[in-house]
Amino acid sequence: MTKWVYSFGAGHNEGRADMRNLLGGKGANLAEMASIGLPVPPGFTITTEVCTAYYDNSRQYPAELAAQVRAALARIEQAVGLRFGDRHKPLLVSVRSGARVSMPGMMDTVLNLGLNDATVEGLGEASGDARFAWDSYRRFIQMYGSVVLGVEHHRFEEIIEHVKMDAGVTEDTALSASDWHRVVDGYKETVRRETGKPFPQDPEEQLWGAIGAVFGSWMNPRANTYRRLHDIPAGWGTAVNVQAMVFGNMGEDCATGVCFTRDPSTGENVFYGEYLVNAQGEDVVAGIRTPQPLSRARAKPGEVSMEQALPDAYAELLRVREMLERHYRDMQDIEFTVQQNRLYMLQTRNGKRTAAASLRIAVEMANEGLIDRNEAVRRVNPASLDQLLHPTLDPKAARTLLSRGLPASPGAASGSVVFSADEAESRAAKGEAVILVRIETSPEDIHGMHAARGILTTRGGMTSHAAVVARGMGRPCVAGAGGISVDYGAQTLSAGGRSVNAGETITIDGATGEVFLGHVAMIEPSMSGDFATLMEWADAARRMRVRTNAETPLDAETARKFGAEGIGLCRTEHMFFDPERIGAVRQMIMAHDEHGRRAALARLLPFQRRDFVELFRIMAGLPVTIRLLDPPLHEFLPHGEAELADVAEALGTDVEAMRRRAAELAEANPMLGHRGCRLGVTYPEIYEMQARAIFEGAIAIVKDGGAAPVPEIMIPLVGAKRELEITRAQVERVAADVFRESGTTIDYIIGTMIELPRAAITADRIAEVADFFSFGTNDLTQTVFGLSRDDAGKFLPRYVELGILAKDPFVTLDTEGVGAMVRIAAEKGRSAKPGLKLGICGEHGGDPASIAFCESVGLDYVSCSPYRVPVARLAAAQAALGAAGDRTA
Amino acid sequence: MTKWVYSFGAGHNEGRADMRNLLGGKGANLAEMASIGLPVPPGFTITTEVCTAYYDNSRQYPAELAAQVRAALARIEQAVGLRFGDRHKPLLVSVRSGARVSMPGMMDTVLNLGLNDATVEGLGEASGDARFAWDSYRRFIQMYGSVVLGVEHHRFEEIIEHVKMDAGVTEDTALSASDWHRVVDGYKETVRRETGKPFPQDPEEQLWGAIGAVFGSWMNPRANTYRRLHDIPAGWGTAVNVQAMVFGNMGEDCATGVCFTRDPSTGENVFYGEYLVNAQGEDVVAGIRTPQPLSRARAKPGEVSMEQALPDAYAELLRVREMLERHYRDMQDIEFTVQQNRLYMLQTRNGKRTAAASLRIAVEMANEGLIDRNEAVRRVNPASLDQLLHPTLDPKAARTLLSRGLPASPGAASGSVVFSADEAESRAAKGEAVILVRIETSPEDIHGMHAARGILTTRGGMTSHAAVVARGMGRPCVAGAGGISVDYGAQTLSAGGRSVNAGETITIDGATGEVFLGHVAMIEPSMSGDFATLMEWADAARRMRVRTNAETPLDAETARKFGAEGIGLCRTEHMFFDPERIGAVRQMIMAHDEHGRRAALARLLPFQRRDFVELFRIMAGLPVTIRLLDPPLHEFLPHGEAELADVAEALGTDVEAMRRRAAELAEANPMLGHRGCRLGVTYPEIYEMQARAIFEGAIAIVKDGGAAPVPEIMIPLVGAKRELEITRAQVERVAADVFRESGTTIDYIIGTMIELPRAAITADRIAEVADFFSFGTNDLTQTVFGLSRDDAGKFLPRYVELGILAKDPFVTLDTEGVGAMVRIAAEKGRSAKPGLKLGICGEHGGDPASIAFCESVGLDYVSCSPYRVPVARLAAAQAALGAAGDRTA
Repeated sequence: MTKWVYSFGAGHNEGRADMRNLLGGKGANLAEMASIGLPVPPGFTITTEVCTAYYDNSRQYPAELAAQVRAALARIEQAVGLRFGDRHKPLLVSVRSGARVSMPGMMDTVLNLGLNDATVEGLGEASGDARFAWDSYRRFIQMYGSVVLGVEHHRFEEIIEHVKMDAGVTEDTALSASDWHRVVDGYKETVRRETGKPFPQDPEEQLWGAIGAVFGSWMNPRANTYRRLHDIPAGWGTAVNVQAMVFGNMGEDCATGVCFTRDPSTGENVFYGEYLVNAQGEDVVAGIRTPQPLSRARAKPGEVSMEQALPDAYAELLRVREMLERHYRDMQDIEFTVQQNRLYMLQTRNGKRTAAASLRIAVEMANEGLIDRNEAVRRVNPASLDQLLHPTLDPKAARTLLSRGLPASPGAASGSVVFSADEAESRAAKGEAVILVRIETSPEDIHGMHAARGILTTRGGMTSHAAVVARGMGRPCVAGAGGISVDYGAQTLSAGGRSVNAGETITIDGATGEVFLGHVAMIEPSMSGDFATLMEWADAARRMRVRTNAETPLDAETARKFGAEGIGLCRTEHMFFDPERIGAVRQMIMAHDEHGRRAALARLLPFQRRDFVELFRIMAGLPVTIRLLDPPLHEFLPHGEAELADVAEALGTDVEAMRRRAAELAEANPMLGHRGCRLGVTYPEIYEMQARAIFEGAIAIVKDGGAAPVPEIMIPLVGAKRELEITRAQVERVAADVFRESGTTIDYIIGTMIELPRAAITADRIAEVADFFSFGTNDLTQTVFGLSRDDAGKFLPRYVELGILAKDPFVTLDTEGVGAMVRIAAEKGRSAKPGLKLGICGEHGGDPASIAFCESVGLDYVSCSPYRVPVARLAAAQAALGAAGDRTA
Repeated sequence: MTKWVYSFGAGHNEGRADMRNLLGGKGANLAEMASIGLPVPPGFTITTEVCTAYYDNSRQYPAELAAQVRAALARIEQAVGLRFGDRHKPLLVSVRSGARVSMPGMMDTVLNLGLNDATVEGLGEASGDARFAWDSYRRFIQMYGSVVLGVEHHRFEEIIEHVKMDAGVTEDTALSASDWHRVVDGYKETVRRETGKPFPQDPEEQLWGAIGAVFGSWMNPRANTYRRLHDIPAGWGTAVNVQAMVFGNMGEDCATGVCFTRDPSTGENVFYGEYLVNAQGEDVVAGIRTPQPLSRARAKPGEVSMEQALPDAYAELLRVREMLERHYRDMQDIEFTVQQNRLYMLQTRNGKRTAAASLRIAVEMANEGLIDRNEAVRRVNPASLDQLLHPTLDPKAARTLLSRGLPASPGAASGSVVFSADEAESRAAKGEAVILVRIETSPEDIHGMHAARGILTTRGGMTSHAAVVARGMGRPCVAGAGGISVDYGAQTLSAGGRSVNAGETITIDGATGEVFLGHVAMIEPSMSGDFATLMEWADAARRMRVRTNAETPLDAETARKFGAEGIGLCRTEHMFFDPERIGAVRQMIMAHDEHGRRAALARLLPFQRRDFVELFRIMAGLPVTIRLLDPPLHEFLPHGEAELADVAEALGTDVEAMRRRAAELAEANPMLGHRGCRLGVTYPEIYEMQARAIFEGAIAIVKDGGAAPVPEIMIPLVGAKRELEITRAQVERVAADVFRESGTTIDYIIGTMIELPRAAITADRIAEVADFFSFGTNDLTQTVFGLSRDDAGKFLPRYVELGILAKDPFVTLDTEGVGAMVRIAAEKGRSAKPGLKLGICGEHGGDPASIAFCESVGLDYVSCSPYRVPVARLAAAQAALGAAGDRTA
């Protein structure tokens, strides 16, 4: 016979904490607490399997259920010496739902079940407090009426208001036993009117009504929506917990409270919580009375601590705190009740905490020997590290919200508003803190973004240019703040009727997307010793290497500081936008023939060589993956008439010629156009210059006595083996030339991005001529989905809302589609060339869920923007350690 | 011991026709002819394996080769009673190359090998004709000198000119034996001067020199280029054929000729060819004398037929013709020589022929019982059918070439030049034939393209809008004629200094890409009975169904006439461009909210319903696949200021609002943007209107007593199962509504395009909610390659040239990449839903090579533009019958 009901408490514990799937989180932990000797009021759990059976069987309960419930109830009666429905010593119970994970939208709690017109008298006699008894009865009818019988909540509130008016009082506390009796009468009448039936007097009927309401709520629309959004299978079901009532509201020796075993905000190992004397659970939440601190040490003048008011129960609670932490080996969030000086535990679960607390608790628990180091590594959510690496707004500081955008790059920043990159640079050079405000940014704004403390755009999504670049630089960024309009001409921005002129101060919070007027006080990040300790443990645990995406010396240095083990992606085109060089770049593009292009490239060579020398020096022998020119040429052309005219003059041509060339280069779908190795194949002189700069730069380092760099030269946008063959041969020819000219040789390897479905599907052939693959998952996501990052903003949010996509696939790798392609490519590549080096260099390289996927595919390294390096180190460690388990922050 | 040499003729035949890979085409057929008793001069073939061994072994011959050649040569000597190098009865041989396929750039032929200063005298004595002997010797030195020794051809020509001057004659025929002797002396002197060595006198040395020249030419640059372009592996190698000489130039009882066993131009079963008395092979080609007809019946006055001049040899030739056709079961291209009234066969091969001839020969041979019907079906190249379905220029008509573009859509057309779609329509309405000339076309030009006889554009490739639409309509089109410049303002086009005004006549040939001034006479296609017969046989042989891509009644009717078995793709957006409707379409796009969109859609509903009624009526119960709206909305917006103003006025809004909306809708990469089912998900009212139009249209047909259509509703651009779930539910809801309102029910199915890599890779999940898949290989090619059709023109030609891509992947399906995705999707789809209906509706559905791939994947049908339907029917039949074998036209 299937066991549908599990008892707990009073020495009869049939469940355990690890039976969460069967008993739900609450039920499993109640049984666990009871079994380790903690004071848990006795009760029983109806399993999640009943829920499943109920729905599988046209909402019929299993035949044996009623008998098992009756037996479990009898056990409670025996344990507490009360009887369900007994008019003298009535047993009252609570009924609570409890799924594997807590789920909004479901029926939560019914207290005081078992009261009726007869037992209310018994409760009054037994407690010696008629007012308590009638207050309890009306609370029960109110909860049961609304959550089980579906009577609107405000119907009950109205009745209390009427009774208070009649009694001439304004506070609930001033109502007497007979006032509450009248409230009860009004409630019962309301239930009869609204439901067409009297309020159920039979406790058994009440109980089954409450149980049915819990199971029924599993499939209500709100719960269904929540499940769909959070990918929770309907088949999991919910459990129902039925437990003997204990009362925190039976007098001054009673109380109720919630607490955390450590400070959930800082992680400090202190007992942290609050309680209310003579109160029932919902009173703490309702906020009618101010809860008091637990310990005398924390009590401010005028506050009465629990330590002082209920010293025995407090001592017992301290003992419980110790036991629970030792037992669960994690910080606990506890609910308790004290009835007549006796402590009862009603719930325990892992406590939610801030990022800082999570880190500190993990490290300290490992140092205390509660958990091992790998477990500490598992405990911290990598994504939360972002909060620790950037300044944050002081939560206590006053602020005036101007508008909101997307939280595009974490951290907070204050500064004067500037509307152009050039002005950002010139003001910053004078030591001024500036916020660069643009409708959207383009590659030509990079110097201004670097100079600014933060970036605000009014258009573009989480993967817009501004967002991606800002994250890479570690600059706070709010993107796509559509409520703000920018007038470059008037040099002003405005939102909701307020306007801000250039030079006035604003503050942005890149972690929330908020924009504030004026300066808001901030808290600087403290890279405490705990941070370094946890990173060290993570490094010991991980298999994959972590590299960075970096082009500038600043980024490269930042990334090394954060622990990067090389560069996984150096986007050489970013080096082209420097004002010193862009002229030569444009000359190259404007050239009518190869001869003209070569002349311009010769001017670029020394710049590019110097770039590589600097990167190689910083990376000191670590691998440096350099991607040859990728974007279409027209990206380097000037926009707007004035810029066109400037360039035409500088090049000694006319605006018309410039415009014609721009039109020639324009593409219907630039993402799918003449770029990447397609440029290298049709204009081989470009890659030749870049290869020469790389080899000459590397040899300069060697001749200078530096650690020999091993350049990993990466050909972008390969779709066919022969593209790589041709471009590889170009690079090898240049290498041979430079080695001969310099009389020096260095090691280098040549590989390709895998960023097109065709490359993935023919990876075995491409691997024959590649030394490594680096998955360019940004572009691969675009082509696998047929989805432009720049255009997806119009419908992607709706798609996530409708559950078509679980997450933005440009943020977290879509394992089902894009991931499947990555896996195919990795397997095919290594089938042709065992030991082929594999990495990832898309934005996903800094996303924890995506990093876990990379581990499962066996990649050798991930590469991400400098500020994501610590995140990636931790995520890689967790991936290597297997499932990250229950994270709590 | 490896056999390197295979003898033929004189009763010792070691080869066969099916040994083409080993012996080359020529050698295999010589052996085959000899073995069936035809008069073939004896000889031997050095195998292609010698060529391969030669290159594998640093250009050394296999050790046993010399002995095997010597033995084979001895066998010839014995057979003909002559000896190689014998000064009295010298054996002369020809040396010819012969690969599996004939290949330009390789050494072709050396005749009369074996002649030297001594044997020339013997030949003179033996033939009794000293002039013949010295002429033969000088021919030999000339051929050997240029092709084996590398002496420039004109050096020899100069000497003949000198001798003729000295002799005071102008014709070669007037030179005497001693004149030729002097020519020989001059030739030998030239060879000594140019090569530094005397002309080889030793026949063995001559022979090995010629053999070496054949093998050496296999790897010369021209041959290498040809092989790369035609995908011929270098490893195939060439064979060398050495054969006893017979002479057609030994007197009036000698002759040489070429003939076809049937007319290669019409296919008529008549003997077709020409000959020259007293001539050697190259004389026929050189064109110095006019060749004469073979049969008396074909001889014009003054001509002397072979039947008349050499009656015995002619009778023998007729017998040979019969034997060869019976034996090879195909039309043969024959070379022969008559020496002293005796016929010798020098070559036979399947003859090249026109499309019309190919068709007629195949059908007639099947009717004659030479081949079976399936073989007839295999014999005709499907691509060649295009020529038969369109008018063609009369080859005899005079013409003046203006310029050239791409042969974008076959057929020829003449008409007055017009520069706008509207003018094309209005002039055509008055009965005028017009050619629409545009820089490029857009969807708004469709009515003009329909009205025009042909289309000429100066920009865009084989898959530009003009090209794709023209092929679909069956309109001749020359696209991307970059040499022509168009001035819309002046209403004139010009090229190469000539200009043509609007209203003047031009002629275009869409099969060649040529553009001519004025009218050029044409030949109308005759859909002869053979065409219908072959199609019937093809239909009996094929497994896959053939549908058409059609939106208009005209296209649908054309396609049915060509045998389409339903519509595989009806692009509903094409119906939106009609001038009557575009206003409502724009109103829908401009609307600020759903309410506004619904109002506009309500105006569109009756139009769209009428469209479907017409298509259903024409298709009379055949399946009709209707794709719901696919392109991004901005495609329907007007371009240019004037059009913007018109539309703004019509909609009662201002130009500024229109411009703003257009800017809002603009996309960075429209191909990857807000289109397809993404529109259906975000603006469900659009698909609802379309679904309603479909169901109401279908029910109107049923109520009218017509054959009930089975609409196959196709959701475009699905990448995730849930997209299809959501849009499918929308359509089903509308169906239920319409069925209830009308009291009538029809069958329908709902499926999706597979045109994104993500759809292919998750096809098993998508199949759970799809009734069919249709492969949209145009878009799939774009996303798998990351290659925009509109932008690929800048580098795709170079890619094909460099061998990176074998063919334009938008014309012939890339089986390695795109095909692999199709196969994955088909397998995954059918693994989840066995029997899932699969089709293809991209441009590839009309391409024979791609159709063969579709057969291999097990698709149920292909769909193509109306004029490709016969091509697809034939190609599908050939695919079902397996490899198409040797096609000859």
